[in-house]
Amino acid sequence: MIHGADIWTYGDENLIDFSSNINPLGYPEGLREFLFSQFDNVKRYPDIKYRLLKDNLSKYLKISSKNIIAGNGAMELIDLIISRYENIIIPYPSFVEYEIRANIRKINMNLIPPKKDLSLDIERILKEIRRLKDKNGSIIIGNPNNPNGYAIDYSHLTDIHSACMESEVDLILDEAFFEYAELDYDTVEYAESKEFKNIIIIRAATKFFALPGLRLGYSVMQSGLAKIIEDQMNPWSINSFADSASSYIFKDEDYIKKSISFNRMERNYLISELNKFGIFRVYDSKSNFILLKMENSNRKLFEFLLKNNLLIRLCQNFRGLDDRYIRIAVKSRIYNDRLLKLLHDYVNLKS
Amino acid sequence: MIHGADIWTYGDENLIDFSSNINPLGYPEGLREFLFSQFDNVKRYPDIKYRLLKDNLSKYLKISSKNIIAGNGAMELIDLIISRYENIIIPYPSFVEYEIRANIRKINMNLIPPKKDLSLDIERILKEIRRLKDKNGSIIIGNPNNPNGYAIDYSHLTDIHSACMESEVDLILDEAFFEYAELDYDTVEYAESKEFKNIIIIRAATKFFALPGLRLGYSVMQSGLAKIIEDQMNPWSINSFADSASSYIFKDEDYIKKSISFNRMERNYLISELNKFGIFRVYDSKSNFILLKMENSNRKLFEFLLKNNLLIRLCQNFRGLDDRYIRIAVKSRIYNDRLLKLLHDYVNLKS
Repeated sequence: MIHGADIWTYGDENLIDFSSNINPLGYPEGLREFLFSQFDNVKRYPDIKYRLLKDNLSKYLKISSKNIIAGNGAMELIDLIISRYENIIIPYPSFVEYEIRANIRKINMNLIPPKKDLSLDIERILKEIRRLKDKNGSIIIGNPNNPNGYAIDYSHLTDIHSACMESEVDLILDEAFFEYAELDYDTVEYAESKEFKNIIIIRAATKFFALPGLRLGYSVMQSGLAKIIEDQMNPWSINSFADSASSYIFKDEDYIKKSISFNRMERNYLISELNKFGIFRVYDSKSNFILLKMENSNRKLFEFLLKNNLLIRLCQNFRGLDDRYIRIAVKSRIYNDRLLKLLHDYVNLKS
Repeated sequence: MIHGADIWTYGDENLIDFSSNINPLGYPEGLREFLFSQFDNVKRYPDIKYRLLKDNLSKYLKISSKNIIAGNGAMELIDLIISRYENIIIPYPSFVEYEIRANIRKINMNLIPPKKDLSLDIERILKEIRRLKDKNGSIIIGNPNNPNGYAIDYSHLTDIHSACMESEVDLILDEAFFEYAELDYDTVEYAESKEFKNIIIIRAATKFFALPGLRLGYSVMQSGLAKIIEDQMNPWSINSFADSASSYIFKDEDYIKKSISFNRMERNYLISELNKFGIFRVYDSKSNFILLKMENSNRKLFEFLLKNNLLIRLCQNFRGLDDRYIRIAVKSRIYNDRLLKLLHDYVNLKS
């Protein structure tokens, strides 16, 4: 599998899907009823300028709607944004679509290996940014990053950004899991400031609001660039359900708070329990998924879990990882305990 | 306005929108409830291969799903397909997005003027196709064409296609309004045949099923090409509501039949009534909209109708047309009569 969440290949919808990083609380309560009260919007073309959607995002992100563009999931925005450069730096391991899209868009890729602990090799990254000076270059980093869940320290962010500013390289941050990270900075604040002018942030409703089928992504950047990119987009690329949902989900403050604290609690629980096994290396995630490294191939564990109706993400198709790595989602306690129980069973079976 | 249906700029949703070519019967009855019952698909990523969607399309179109790709509305497919060529022939007047996308994609355009009656200049088109021999070229034609509603005669289609075959030029047919045209041929049949190998058909649920907000387009072509194009698409570009809707709308044979006969009846009624005015040139549409040419500028009529809560499509931004042209949709009798009444009022006011 190239991606997680491929339950359509691996079995029926009753699988417990630990391969997909979706908010276990499900979409905000009341959304279903709300969208059906708005159903007849489907009879009309969406507002070609998506004024209401942007207004809702503007309030949620606390930035002018001039700095915002919306897309058909984060994917459309990732593709469109990276297509603008001749060169792109991609530190790995990272979301496999960066490479796939850069390949399709015929962008020169500079793939940067991580340090031993899979963290960003900042020195190397700074060097490579400087090498792209005035070469229509960009760098894309997940923040937090998939699959290791690492977020960028503020000091590293400013180092990377300064190098980008000096070299006229654009810094693209894929923040599809941003809400979960509870960082001491909010990159969106920088998009309006002149000092941070070449920062582009991509986020989505997909993961955090548990709405992967809705296809709603958004991006924040300097207003001039937003206008340029928007003028290149296909018209009506966001469907009317996603457009309408923005009037509901981004206003549900209770859901947002609860999702963050719930994930923090369950992630910490899982990390602590997984560490007790002593046979996994557990990467310290800031997101809603956890990368694990096993001593041997993940294949038998994968099959054991699948037989028990539980799907995990094999990680060998992430550049830099191999078949010892797996990624699991943070889910509700009952499922997390089910996973832990099966892992215990598996370990006992083998010993 | 670049497009019709921009009620978001021109006023509220109570406008009678004659600028937008949407089936006046509305979406199939029961669809709302059906999509409600399927709502929780939104919690999961859509099948990355869209197996069920393609199976539904395969049955509707009577062609193997290997020949089908689906997209986020016809727009995504138009953009993606024309982006593959270095050269494109665009007979005009036609859907404004052909030129817009070709410009953005940096494709060389060869814009072919129509004959005096706005029909395709077949001789000129054949000549231009031959000039593109072995130059990675394509031609895109609306069938029926927006804004004049003309469909391609079978004999012209085969002439154009033969020239394309000889010159290795791909023939892209934008058939967003195909169902309404009731032609004596079905282009989809040709996509599987070797004789017609370089034909690419683009259609959509948008217009015929009155679902512009759903964003569901599809394309039919040789299976090898379908695979190549699909491999270049962003993953999950079709939302789960569009995916689910395919299990309902394409099976609703009563709705399909009724929509076609209803449109035929109302179109013929409108054409006949409009001709009685004696002051419009009425273009003989095969679609669900009608192009009209007035003696003078459309501006006063547009404003008069808008004051009376009725929006029409001004056509001066269609290449080859000017401010004497307007396009109206075919709607239900009560609205069609309202339009005719207002046109009479307008004519009487002026005389």
